[in-house]
Amino acid sequence: MALQQGWITLTTDFGIRDPFIGIVKGVIAGINPQARVIDLSHQVAAQDVMAAALILRFSVAFFPPGTIHVAVVDPGVGTTRQCLLIQSQDAYLIGPDNGVLSLALRDKAPVQIVHLSNPTYHLCPPCATFHGRDIFAPVAAYLSLGVAPTAFGETLNSFERIEWPRVTKSTRGIEGKIIYIDGFGNLFTNIEDRDLRGLPTEQLRISLDGIEIHGLSANYLGGDDGRWIALINSWGLLEIARYKDNAAQRSQARVGDRVSVLIL
Amino acid sequence: MALQQGWITLTTDFGIRDPFIGIVKGVIAGINPQARVIDLSHQVAAQDVMAAALILRFSVAFFPPGTIHVAVVDPGVGTTRQCLLIQSQDAYLIGPDNGVLSLALRDKAPVQIVHLSNPTYHLCPPCATFHGRDIFAPVAAYLSLGVAPTAFGETLNSFERIEWPRVTKSTRGIEGKIIYIDGFGNLFTNIEDRDLRGLPTEQLRISLDGIEIHGLSANYLGGDDGRWIALINSWGLLEIARYKDNAAQRSQARVGDRVSVLIL
Amino acid sequence: MALQQGWITLTTDFGIRDPFIGIVKGVIAGINPQARVIDLSHQVAAQDVMAAALILRFSVAFFPPGTIHVAVVDPGVGTTRQCLLIQSQDAYLIGPDNGVLSLALRDKAPVQIVHLSNPTYHLCPPCATFHGRDIFAPVAAYLSLGVAPTAFGETLNSFERIEWPRVTKSTRGIEGKIIYIDGFGNLFTNIEDRDLRGLPTEQLRISLDGIEIHGLSANYLGGDDGRWIALINSWGLLEIARYKDNAAQRSQARVGDRVSVLIL
Repeated sequence: MALQQGWITLTTDFGIRDPFIGIVKGVIAGINPQARVIDLSHQVAAQDVMAAALILRFSVAFFPPGTIHVAVVDPGVGTTRQCLLIQSQDAYLIGPDNGVLSLALRDKAPVQIVHLSNPTYHLCPPCATFHGRDIFAPVAAYLSLGVAPTAFGETLNSFERIEWPRVTKSTRGIEGKIIYIDGFGNLFTNIEDRDLRGLPTEQLRISLDGIEIHGLSANYLGGDDGRWIALINSWGLLEIARYKDNAAQRSQARVGDRVSVLIL
Repeated sequence: MALQQGWITLTTDFGIRDPFIGIVKGVIAGINPQARVIDLSHQVAAQDVMAAALILRFSVAFFPPGTIHVAVVDPGVGTTRQCLLIQSQDAYLIGPDNGVLSLALRDKAPVQIVHLSNPTYHLCPPCATFHGRDIFAPVAAYLSLGVAPTAFGETLNSFERIEWPRVTKSTRGIEGKIIYIDGFGNLFTNIEDRDLRGLPTEQLRISLDGIEIHGLSANYLGGDDGRWIALINSWGLLEIARYKDNAAQRSQARVGDRVSVLIL
Repeated sequence: MALQQGWITLTTDFGIRDPFIGIVKGVIAGINPQARVIDLSHQVAAQDVMAAALILRFSVAFFPPGTIHVAVVDPGVGTTRQCLLIQSQDAYLIGPDNGVLSLALRDKAPVQIVHLSNPTYHLCPPCATFHGRDIFAPVAAYLSLGVAPTAFGETLNSFERIEWPRVTKSTRGIEGKIIYIDGFGNLFTNIEDRDLRGLPTEQLRISLDGIEIHGLSANYLGGDDGRWIALINSWGLLEIARYKDNAAQRSQARVGDRVSVLIL
């Protein structure tokens, strides 16, 4: 897997009001001026490990092979939770061992897992409260320079995983739930396109707390008459939405709310 | 028009909480690692085509010739509205055919208009709800690599235009309106510096719903005594503002509100 | 001090909803396509010169030597306040002469101070309300190309300084105050690690308007039982915080509120 391009993505809950992300980029620039950093999100809800894990899960495939993805949503910073580098077949993932990296590896066995224990590659002296700056940024930068993964510490056999929230299937349909709400207020469920494959889409009834939707739309315009719509979205997930409107505000739905698909 | 620099700007209503913009940049990076992407705004109000068109209108001139400007404010995504590449004398514009590209071409005849119908340059298979990722990003990236505009599809003779909101002039003065409110709360009108050229600036009375301003200030400090001020702003537009204060909040003014300039 | 890397950081109160920052980057790209721009913050509270000065103060050390830091928080834009370039031993600072650059130079004598009076390096004609675009951006870009600092205007002997808010020390302890509140709601004080050096950290009592904290925590997890905590943060400052919670919202504390450290 070639790393010459030196792409690094960042996913954090740091927000953008403070200079913390800029400082992380300054540290990377100082180590590898050729590295190219792309922001995925810095507005993950504070300490929402699951949201960050989903963001990585659905973003990695759109980046060049060998891209280094750094995720810092890390309520346990400074404690004994370990800092990890996980190499998969097409990407490197760097972050705390709290599950944030795990959904991106849902269908893949990791090539190797490294505990970032070698202080040679940390900012010195490290601070107990900003591993993004002191550990994750320099490790990502050195990795982008071609330093071997195993140089950063000892290899491990396992890492903390968040389980993908599975759907329940029966002959009558599928039970799932809302797992992510985007900035437009669209409601993303854990029901995947492969769960619905082969089903007669016009004979499906999608339900969410009193809202009933018949059939799947091809795009948002299916709801231009003000109806609720359901569609397979850009992440391959069943989504409940409204045309030019905020479905989350309208429905007061939240992450975790039940969504069912009934085959009529 | 040289394209070697490979500058691409992005203007969207995607917000920055979700990884959608990062994903668009990942797609570009995978096609042309040398492309350089600059964000214009990702916080255009959801589906506010006019605001995005104004942003492009007043930004293009400040970028190197040959810059590729991508605008994705696109309530009709997935429908029959076409995806366009418009080449002007100094820039390339890419986006949906809903008028978002048109104000940047207000004073210019397009060199050519191309319908992005050639799937060779689309992400495959394309998704009906994310043309930013699946059509606009790859086309921008291939264009920045030097692919000829006509390779992306058939040429068209026209495209959808938003009309510039014209002012009404009389011997007594000018009638205009608020067309954009910036993040400081400054009120931008459609009255341009050229509309006021030759008029005695100290004899003008600018009115907005009960607020009366006499004369134009050279800068914001003209209002350091708490008065309302009017000035020609950095986009060459008549602006109503307050020093260290939010004029939009103070006045409750909105886009579309009438502003008049009377010659005393 | 080598400048070949061409790093430029931006700190402003422009926000990110409008295209102003993108326009600044377009101007830089047009002059030096090799320059690399990093955002520190664009969400400094409107016209909060002190916050921007603190951001620069605690960010500069993490960037490569020779980085050009541009700060545009500038209520006096267009007036007689001067535009400055200050060269220190490890960085260049560009911004208005209103103190915003001064805290980054707290412990350092400037190598030279230049008044940006030479219009050759300004966008032409300059606008009275957007020096970020018309003066600071082009000067930063030309500087990153290797233009000598003295080419931009005459040298000055002094510049406007904001005083670092000093703590009061006695044998019983230290009196300080809150100087910055980050996006997590953590309360940063002006009490520095060096102020506390040699003191018995477990015998300290930190007080803020009725909140009393005993001892310093090594990290945020020290407060996982819901207690208020105090720690030395990533900027080397005494910080009052809560684990997975927003200390600013909980305490209603504001910048300027008194914090005392008592030695028991």
